[in-house]
Amino acid sequence: MAGKYYNLDNMLKPKSVAIIGASQSPGKVGHIIMQNYLNVGYDGELYPVNVGAEGLILGKKSYKSVLDIKKPLDLAVIAIPAKFVPQALEECGKAKVKSVIIVSSGFSEVGDSGLQEQIVSIAKKYSLPVLGPNCLGVMDLRSRVDTMFLPTFKIDKPSIGGVSFASQSGAVGSTVLDMISHENFGLSKFISYGNAAVVDEVDILNYLGHDPDTKVIIFYIEGVRRGKEFVEVAKEVTRLKPVIMIKGGITPAGSSAAHSHTASLAGSYAAYEAVFEQYGFIQAKSLDDMLYFAKIFETQPLSTKKRIAIITNGGGVGVLAADSLYLNGLQMAEISDDAKKELRKVMPPIVNMSMPMDMAGDADDKRFGAAMEVFSKDPNVDALMVISLFQTPGADSRVAAMIIKYGSEGKKPIVVVSPGGNYAEVHNNMMESSGVPVYPSPEDAAKALAALVKYSEYRERMGSLNAEDKNIKKSK
Amino acid sequence: MAGKYYNLDNMLKPKSVAIIGASQSPGKVGHIIMQNYLNVGYDGELYPVNVGAEGLILGKKSYKSVLDIKKPLDLAVIAIPAKFVPQALEECGKAKVKSVIIVSSGFSEVGDSGLQEQIVSIAKKYSLPVLGPNCLGVMDLRSRVDTMFLPTFKIDKPSIGGVSFASQSGAVGSTVLDMISHENFGLSKFISYGNAAVVDEVDILNYLGHDPDTKVIIFYIEGVRRGKEFVEVAKEVTRLKPVIMIKGGITPAGSSAAHSHTASLAGSYAAYEAVFEQYGFIQAKSLDDMLYFAKIFETQPLSTKKRIAIITNGGGVGVLAADSLYLNGLQMAEISDDAKKELRKVMPPIVNMSMPMDMAGDADDKRFGAAMEVFSKDPNVDALMVISLFQTPGADSRVAAMIIKYGSEGKKPIVVVSPGGNYAEVHNNMMESSGVPVYPSPEDAAKALAALVKYSEYRERMGSLNAEDKNIKKSK
Repeated sequence: MAGKYYNLDNMLKPKSVAIIGASQSPGKVGHIIMQNYLNVGYDGELYPVNVGAEGLILGKKSYKSVLDIKKPLDLAVIAIPAKFVPQALEECGKAKVKSVIIVSSGFSEVGDSGLQEQIVSIAKKYSLPVLGPNCLGVMDLRSRVDTMFLPTFKIDKPSIGGVSFASQSGAVGSTVLDMISHENFGLSKFISYGNAAVVDEVDILNYLGHDPDTKVIIFYIEGVRRGKEFVEVAKEVTRLKPVIMIKGGITPAGSSAAHSHTASLAGSYAAYEAVFEQYGFIQAKSLDDMLYFAKIFETQPLSTKKRIAIITNGGGVGVLAADSLYLNGLQMAEISDDAKKELRKVMPPIVNMSMPMDMAGDADDKRFGAAMEVFSKDPNVDALMVISLFQTPGADSRVAAMIIKYGSEGKKPIVVVSPGGNYAEVHNNMMESSGVPVYPSPEDAAKALAALVKYSEYRERMGSLNAEDKNIKKSK
Repeated sequence: MAGKYYNLDNMLKPKSVAIIGASQSPGKVGHIIMQNYLNVGYDGELYPVNVGAEGLILGKKSYKSVLDIKKPLDLAVIAIPAKFVPQALEECGKAKVKSVIIVSSGFSEVGDSGLQEQIVSIAKKYSLPVLGPNCLGVMDLRSRVDTMFLPTFKIDKPSIGGVSFASQSGAVGSTVLDMISHENFGLSKFISYGNAAVVDEVDILNYLGHDPDTKVIIFYIEGVRRGKEFVEVAKEVTRLKPVIMIKGGITPAGSSAAHSHTASLAGSYAAYEAVFEQYGFIQAKSLDDMLYFAKIFETQPLSTKKRIAIITNGGGVGVLAADSLYLNGLQMAEISDDAKKELRKVMPPIVNMSMPMDMAGDADDKRFGAAMEVFSKDPNVDALMVISLFQTPGADSRVAAMIIKYGSEGKKPIVVVSPGGNYAEVHNNMMESSGVPVYPSPEDAAKALAALVKYSEYRERMGSLNAEDKNIKKSK
C-alpha cells in the first residue's frame, strides 16, 4: 500500500479498543457502541473510558482517561460532546493510540470550523489517522467490529461478502446497510467518514482498493478535497476492481444542501462526471442503481461483449426487456440454427424460435433448463437475461433451482428479472443467496448489464481484463 | 357512455356466466376458472359447459353446449383449444350470450390469422363483445368476478380500491397485479385483452374512463389499431382522470418482439409519444414507474404548483432529494421567517433552518409532526417530501402515525421516502395502507411528484382542474 495514505487496518481490525464516553446509561451513544462491540462477539481488549467513571461499565473495568490504560491501543472511539473532543484526542496522541474514530457531531457541519481545525492540528501533531467527526464509524463483519450507535433491531445485518461501502453521510450509510441485506448480497467493510477532517475519500479509496476482502467498492460522496490525489488513487484502483459512485449535490439545489450537511464543497458535477468517466468509475444515479450494480459485480463475471439472450415465461415482459436492452446500448442475441434444433426438442410448438425467447406461461424447469443450457454454450450469446415470472403456472422452486445452477456457473453474466409479491420474493431470496442477481424489472437488469459491459471495456482498455475476470466461479 | 364503443358491463358484472371448457380435472384451465369463480364468492349463476360433460362439474350441473342452457347468459368464458373456439363462439351467438371472453391462445400470435378472422366475423355477425383471444380475462373485486386461470397462491390479491389496470399482455397483467398488492394500493378492475381481435384498447379506455369505480387507469399496450378513435376517447377521458401508459415495443428490438407476441404493429414510438404528450397521458418508462405513479394519483390531491418542502431525518438523503427535485423540474421551497420561528420552538439548535430541513438522526414524532404541521399550512409550500429513515434512533411507529395524520389529509400532495429492510417495511405498509404513498428513493418520489404536477397542468389547460381535485380527502 502506498505509504502516503493512511492505513486503516487499526480502525477496522483493532486488537484493542478504548470507548471514550462509554456509559452505563442505555440511552447514551457510548453505551450503544460498547454494547455493539459486545454483541457482535468482538474478541479483542475493550476499555471503557469516562471522566466520571467509577468501577465497571458493562462488566468492564473503566478508566477516567486513555492515559490511565497504559496498554497498547489500536483504536479509540470518541463519543462525547464536541467541545470535549480536542482534549480527548490530545490524550489519545499522548497515549500513542494508533487510530481514532470521532462519532460526535457539532463541528464544521454546524459552522464551527474552529473546533474542527483543532482536531486536524492535533491529528497532524501525532500523525494520527482520525475518522470523522460527525460519522457513524466503521463496521467489519470479519473482524467483528461495529462502532455504529444505532439500534440493531432497526437494521437488517448483511451477511459477510465482498462489497465494501464508504459513505460520507451517516444516514445514507445506515440506510444502505439495511438495503444491502434486503438485496441479499454480502458486505465486507462499511466506513462512514462524515466531515473527513483527517482521513478522507482518497485514503479510504486507496485502502479499500488494496483490501483483499473487498471485491467491489460502493461510495457515497458529497465532495472531494484532494482532486489530484483522488485521480492518482482512482487510476490504480479502478483497473483492479469495480468502484461504484453515487455523488450527492450534483445540482445547484443539492450542492448547497451538501454544503450545510457535511460542509462539502460539492463542485461542478460536469467536472466530477468527466473525472468519473475518464477514470473508470461506475456512476450510479440513485441508491437503487448503486445496489443493483453492486449485485452484478459481486457475483457475475466481466464481459465486453453485448449480445444478450432473453429467456422469458411472459411475452409482454420480454417485449419490455427487448426495449430495455436497446435503450441501454446492448443487443439482442440471435438464435443460431443449431440452438433452434436443440431447443425444438424441448419446447412445444407454440414456442416461437425467435428472440426474446417466449417459452409461454406454462414454462417449467425443463424449458428454463434447456434454454439456459443451450444459451450458456452458444458462442453467439454473451450474456443471459432470464425473466422468471413466478405468477405463472409453471414457475416454482424447481425453476429457481435451475436458474441457480446456471446463474452461479460464472461463465457468462446472468441477470434474472422477477417482479412481484410474496411468492416471488421467497424465490428471489433463494436465488440471490446463491449468488444470482435478481432485479424487479427488465429496465433495472438491463442497466446493470450495461454497467458491467462498460466497466469491462474500461478494464480491457487499461489492459487489466484477465481471463479469470471473464470466466470465474466467484465465491460468495 | 358513447354508444359506438363496446360496453363491458356484462363481462365485468355478469349475473350469469357459462364456462366453456369447464372440467373436473384440477389441471385444466376450465377447472381453475370455475374454481376461481367459486373461491371469490361469485353470487350469480354459474353454468359449466363441456362437450363431453356428464353430471356435475364442481358441484354444478353441466351442459354439452351453451345452446342447452336456455337461460339468459351475460357472459361466456371460452377455455378450449383454439380450433374448437369458432364453433363455440357461433353457439354463443345463437344462444344470445351478451359477452364472451376467449382465454385460449393459438391465434394470430402464433401466425394463425385465419382462425382469428373467423372469430372477428362471428363476433360481428352477432354484435358480440369478445375479449381476447390469448388473454387472462378480467377481474373485478367488487363484483367478485375472476376469470384468471392462475394458481391463486402465487399472486397476492390486491385490496379493493380505485386503480383499474388494462394489459395487452397476460404475463404483464398477472405480474403487475401481484406488484399492486405489494405496493399496497387498491384495485378496481383488471382487464387482460390479449390479441384485441374484437374489443380493443379504445373500447377499454372508453369503458374505464366512464366507470365510476375507477379513479386512475393504468395501461400496458403494445399497439393501437384505431388511432383516430383512440385519440377521440383519450381527449374525453384524460381530462377526467389520470391515465398512466406504458408502451411495449418502443424500440426496433422491442417492436419486432411485440409483433410476435400479440401480433401488434407497434408503430413508431415518436408518433406514440407525441400522441401521449398531446392528449394528457402520463407516460411511464418502466413497470415500477407505472405503479409509483398510480400510487400518488390514487391517494393525493392534484397540484399545478411545484415548490416542495423536503423534511428529512438524514442529511445525505436530503441532498439526494434536492438533486432529484431539480432534475425533475421541481423546486425546493424556501422557509419563510414565520415558519422558522414556529420550527425553532421544537427543533434543537443543531437543526439548521434551511431546506432540505435536516432534523437530525434523533428526530422523533414531535419534530416530524412540527415540520409537517408548519409546512402543511405554509402558503410558500405546495407539496411535501418526507424522508423518514427508519434506521435512525428517533424513527418508529409514532413517526409513521404522524406521517399518516398529515399524509392522508389531502390538502397538499405528500410523498414519503423510506428505503430499507424489514423494520422499514413494516412501517411502509402501515403508511401505504392508510393512503400515504411511500417510495424507496428520493428519485422515485420526485418522479412521481413531477408526474402529478405535469398532469395537473394538463387538466388546468383543459379547464377541468376543479377545486375538489386539489383539496380533497380521497377515500381508500
